[in-house]
Amino acid sequence: MSEVRYGIIGIGNMGSGHAGILTSGKIKGAVLTAVCDGFESKREWAKEHFAGKVAVFENASDMIDSGLVDAIIVATPHYDHPAEAIGALGKGVHVLIEKPAGVYAKQVREMNDAAAASGKKFGIVYNQRMNPLYQKLRELIASGEIGDVRRINWIITNWYRTQVYYDSGTWRATWGGEGGGVLINQCPHQLDLWQWTTGMMPKRMRAFCQFGKNRDIEVENDVTAYAEYENGATAVFITSTSDAPGTNRLEVSGSRGKIVIEDDRMTLYRLREDEAAFNARNKEPFASPEVWKIELPAAGPSPEHAGILQNFTDAVLHGTPLVAPGEEGIYGLTLSNAMHLSTWLDDWVDLPLDEALHEAELNKRIATSKFKRTQPAEVKI
Amino acid sequence: MSEVRYGIIGIGNMGSGHAGILTSGKIKGAVLTAVCDGFESKREWAKEHFAGKVAVFENASDMIDSGLVDAIIVATPHYDHPAEAIGALGKGVHVLIEKPAGVYAKQVREMNDAAAASGKKFGIVYNQRMNPLYQKLRELIASGEIGDVRRINWIITNWYRTQVYYDSGTWRATWGGEGGGVLINQCPHQLDLWQWTTGMMPKRMRAFCQFGKNRDIEVENDVTAYAEYENGATAVFITSTSDAPGTNRLEVSGSRGKIVIEDDRMTLYRLREDEAAFNARNKEPFASPEVWKIELPAAGPSPEHAGILQNFTDAVLHGTPLVAPGEEGIYGLTLSNAMHLSTWLDDWVDLPLDEALHEAELNKRIATSKFKRTQPAEVKI
Repeated sequence: MSEVRYGIIGIGNMGSGHAGILTSGKIKGAVLTAVCDGFESKREWAKEHFAGKVAVFENASDMIDSGLVDAIIVATPHYDHPAEAIGALGKGVHVLIEKPAGVYAKQVREMNDAAAASGKKFGIVYNQRMNPLYQKLRELIASGEIGDVRRINWIITNWYRTQVYYDSGTWRATWGGEGGGVLINQCPHQLDLWQWTTGMMPKRMRAFCQFGKNRDIEVENDVTAYAEYENGATAVFITSTSDAPGTNRLEVSGSRGKIVIEDDRMTLYRLREDEAAFNARNKEPFASPEVWKIELPAAGPSPEHAGILQNFTDAVLHGTPLVAPGEEGIYGLTLSNAMHLSTWLDDWVDLPLDEALHEAELNKRIATSKFKRTQPAEVKI
Repeated sequence: MSEVRYGIIGIGNMGSGHAGILTSGKIKGAVLTAVCDGFESKREWAKEHFAGKVAVFENASDMIDSGLVDAIIVATPHYDHPAEAIGALGKGVHVLIEKPAGVYAKQVREMNDAAAASGKKFGIVYNQRMNPLYQKLRELIASGEIGDVRRINWIITNWYRTQVYYDSGTWRATWGGEGGGVLINQCPHQLDLWQWTTGMMPKRMRAFCQFGKNRDIEVENDVTAYAEYENGATAVFITSTSDAPGTNRLEVSGSRGKIVIEDDRMTLYRLREDEAAFNARNKEPFASPEVWKIELPAAGPSPEHAGILQNFTDAVLHGTPLVAPGEEGIYGLTLSNAMHLSTWLDDWVDLPLDEALHEAELNKRIATSKFKRTQPAEVKI
């Protein structure tokens, strides 16, 4: 194979974005050959927009069966990601899914099993993993530059969303339509980076979700979560959609220093000696280890979505390792699910997550949600 | 009265500091006439140091009965602050206590009652209230510059303390000797400022104290606390004594903007229009209110302890309002007590605090503490 022929399932906001990148010629070895969408208006738009150069189907099954595609991108509403992926993998095509991997960990686990059995490439659009800033953070931590990770504080409250935004789709910010709020829609990248950059998943969590904070919606849009790790580390994750102006500040503190990322800038504070070693040999009550404030080489721009598409294409064509394997989508989603469950139970939640309990609790909310999944889910904007 | 004659109870680290300021001539209308300390070594030091110009007593009762003092400063170990204050107020002198007000809210409430009945001036050494930075924060919030307070995040982890520090006094970092760790010893100023600058006390708290984290001590030295307020606001308070280098970053977010204090610098982000009003009139899904990043006039240096001593002296001589009335010491202590109690019960704690329950739980820890209060409590350093 010298070229990956892509099909896109769902040609809404994200799907049309991917289509734009694929048809721009930026992605070496990739070509867009087909799209499908359940909405006639979207299909009409696609026919006109691609001027007949891309085949347009009503459903994914017909699109894949046409033989026109080697790989598909799933850009449907969150709930449908696993089912679409499982269907496509079963038909022998490679699959790249939009985030989140799904809405509840149990359905994502089934998708992961299907991917493992298929032997096909399976990726997720965690485009923030392409950001050199977070790649550097991950590399610094993995190489031991800040020693053992002891504390992670992420204040990620710069997701300002208006009531008009929430009113722009009947499915938006509903249990039935999205299965969550800021955690499912806005935060999947940060929930992924939290564990991807540090290489650590919590052993238990206690979270405080507020539902419909300053907005008329049924899901969470303000969250404070606390996590504890096997090695004694702790973490706090704070997010919101009604803070203005919000903050995006990530601090990771270790036994040998601290990294702060704020306003897209990274600052490294490195101890000349590990704190534990210093403390063990020190004789002065008010002494502290020598700290170096270090200027790192500037990180370049992030290739974002184009980076993910190139990496996935290279994986299919040349076996290049995936930066964001689809199987890893379950980690960030588990953190999100654990925050919901902890709030619903008003108690600690241990990890690995009780996925069946989470699904049962989610289903209670879906049952009384104002959005029923039988409704059309097209976005108004 | 043209001059306030001060006596100091306890001439250790803090007491000798106050003595130094009082004898420097910096405080208009104040003179140091006496000190007392239960330790002979401290009395010997005082006799030599003050070269006979300041009377030296073994106990507070004799010092006050001598008629040499109009006001006393209580600089004894934390547990003894309320009893010393109550004794002095009963003898008709003005009282300025070191922080914390005490170790448990119940004893502090008794002290507050005694102060109210005495008609004497009663202050607490919350010298951080003299810092123009926090005074400005309080003034900006009180005057509505950032609207309704919605979120408070304080990461105050720059309290690096070594094992040698903890080993420097047998009473240090013990339930019997101090009644707590970082919350009682290092954080009283921040716990005060948290509520003083915002004018808000939580309605309930959920805290996660870690005891002896990276250090061989019995009390908490790593804390993450979450708070909820009557108006829907939330807060996070994070502190530690083993982070290196630590952080001191306070962020207060309101409906009309945000204030960030970090590295002793304040940044004000002000919305041109209250977020709630903007959201109500806005028609664009991804719009957000206009933000102004504002440079405020530089805050001057903080007069710190000298500022508190001058203010207290002025209160006695001229009826000047106290910046830090002693009665307000209970607020910060209540936050600290609530964090301990929430951790011990592994549950929410409602405010007003169940002070008797807190005391009972504290007493359990004191009973098994390695420090017994009958031991001498002199500091080695």
